[in-house]
Amino acid sequence: MDRVKALFFDVFGTVVDWRSSIVEEGRRFGERTGIDLDWEAFADHWRALYPPVMDRVRTGVLPWMVLDDLQRITLEELLTEHGVTEVPEEERYHFTMGWRRLHPWPDSVEGLRRLSAERTTVALSNGNLALIEGLAQFGDLSFDVILGAEPARHYKPDPEVYLTAAQVLRLPPPQVGMVAAHNSDLQAAKELGFKTVFVRRPNEFGKNPTADAEPTDDYDLVVDDLMGFARELGV
Amino acid sequence: MDRVKALFFDVFGTVVDWRSSIVEEGRRFGERTGIDLDWEAFADHWRALYPPVMDRVRTGVLPWMVLDDLQRITLEELLTEHGVTEVPEEERYHFTMGWRRLHPWPDSVEGLRRLSAERTTVALSNGNLALIEGLAQFGDLSFDVILGAEPARHYKPDPEVYLTAAQVLRLPPPQVGMVAAHNSDLQAAKELGFKTVFVRRPNEFGKNPTADAEPTDDYDLVVDDLMGFARELGV
Repeated sequence: MDRVKALFFDVFGTVVDWRSSIVEEGRRFGERTGIDLDWEAFADHWRALYPPVMDRVRTGVLPWMVLDDLQRITLEELLTEHGVTEVPEEERYHFTMGWRRLHPWPDSVEGLRRLSAERTTVALSNGNLALIEGLAQFGDLSFDVILGAEPARHYKPDPEVYLTAAQVLRLPPPQVGMVAAHNSDLQAAKELGFKTVFVRRPNEFGKNPTADAEPTDDYDLVVDDLMGFARELGV
Repeated sequence: MDRVKALFFDVFGTVVDWRSSIVEEGRRFGERTGIDLDWEAFADHWRALYPPVMDRVRTGVLPWMVLDDLQRITLEELLTEHGVTEVPEEERYHFTMGWRRLHPWPDSVEGLRRLSAERTTVALSNGNLALIEGLAQFGDLSFDVILGAEPARHYKPDPEVYLTAAQVLRLPPPQVGMVAAHNSDLQAAKELGFKTVFVRRPNEFGKNPTADAEPTDDYDLVVDDLMGFARELGV
């Protein structure tokens, strides 16, 4: 990892705990609107709609849209499915913007701060720039650069996302480490020649099972959290 | 300015003192290579080649190229013009990368830090992202977001630069303030509905006269430096 000058971070699940945050947002949404649902199941269902709606963009069923807008579309579909129709526009907007108020994992703020002092820390999320900037402000996350899916107009794990980001940073892939809690993200980066760091986040989906609890491939580094990663780099 | 959520900053001249820094880089380049030139005149000449080389991109004489590469082209032209041909590649590279080692004006670091605590601070420079990120690391500049000319693949004052940046931030122009020491930059932003802040930098070109010593239009705010701007916003 000595040659690595920049670190690309996946954000949802890797840096922030989206699930407990969205459950909390759901409960508040329910209290304000009088809608009584199982908010844990709702959060899981909302998250489950994320890969297929990105696929709709990938296959051209939907035009290029940023994640803020995709989350709004899937929220509408989910509310309709639950028979919920009478919700004021500002509540739908506020709930969707809940994806900008996700709490960092306990180690993320200090871990990122230490890593940022030594390397260029880059948010490389499928979230759009304004969304990730909102998360960074909300959670005090030390990203030197925020990129996301917009420069390439592709979603991870499409290779364009990683390669465009490296090009913008003017670094060849071996000088960049991709840091993520998901095997698909790291496998895509590894195939393109990036260094890879797997972060264990076994509780990303609460008590639900996940295929990403452990690494399923050989990565350059496997760590338990971002503080552990900082220690591995000696920072 | 109360409605303004994000501040777009011009960087060269507005935040950093490119001239004294490039003069210094030139002197060191001269010491290492044994080339004896008037480095003040050289810096001014290099800077003077910047608008026409951007025009070559605008008019399609050159393909889209980022500023790192344009500066290298104009450096080669300038060295040739001075009859300098025997310079090792690594020295040419290092001198060009001198544009990533520009010193901030004395008020910039603390001014940006204060402004960044209250608003989203965005670097909106004609420099490419890697160049501005280098400057931010070198000078400890608190930019929350670095954009530059790349998202629009246009150079300021083309309207695409400002409008693409606002779209990425998901903000309408009236909620964004353009902060610059140059009238052309602010006039372009003002025409598109952005708020405008003129920063006086009378010594940007050393003792050379500049048309930008004073505002030539009505802007929302005119300040003497970034600390003065922070004070105007009460931060």
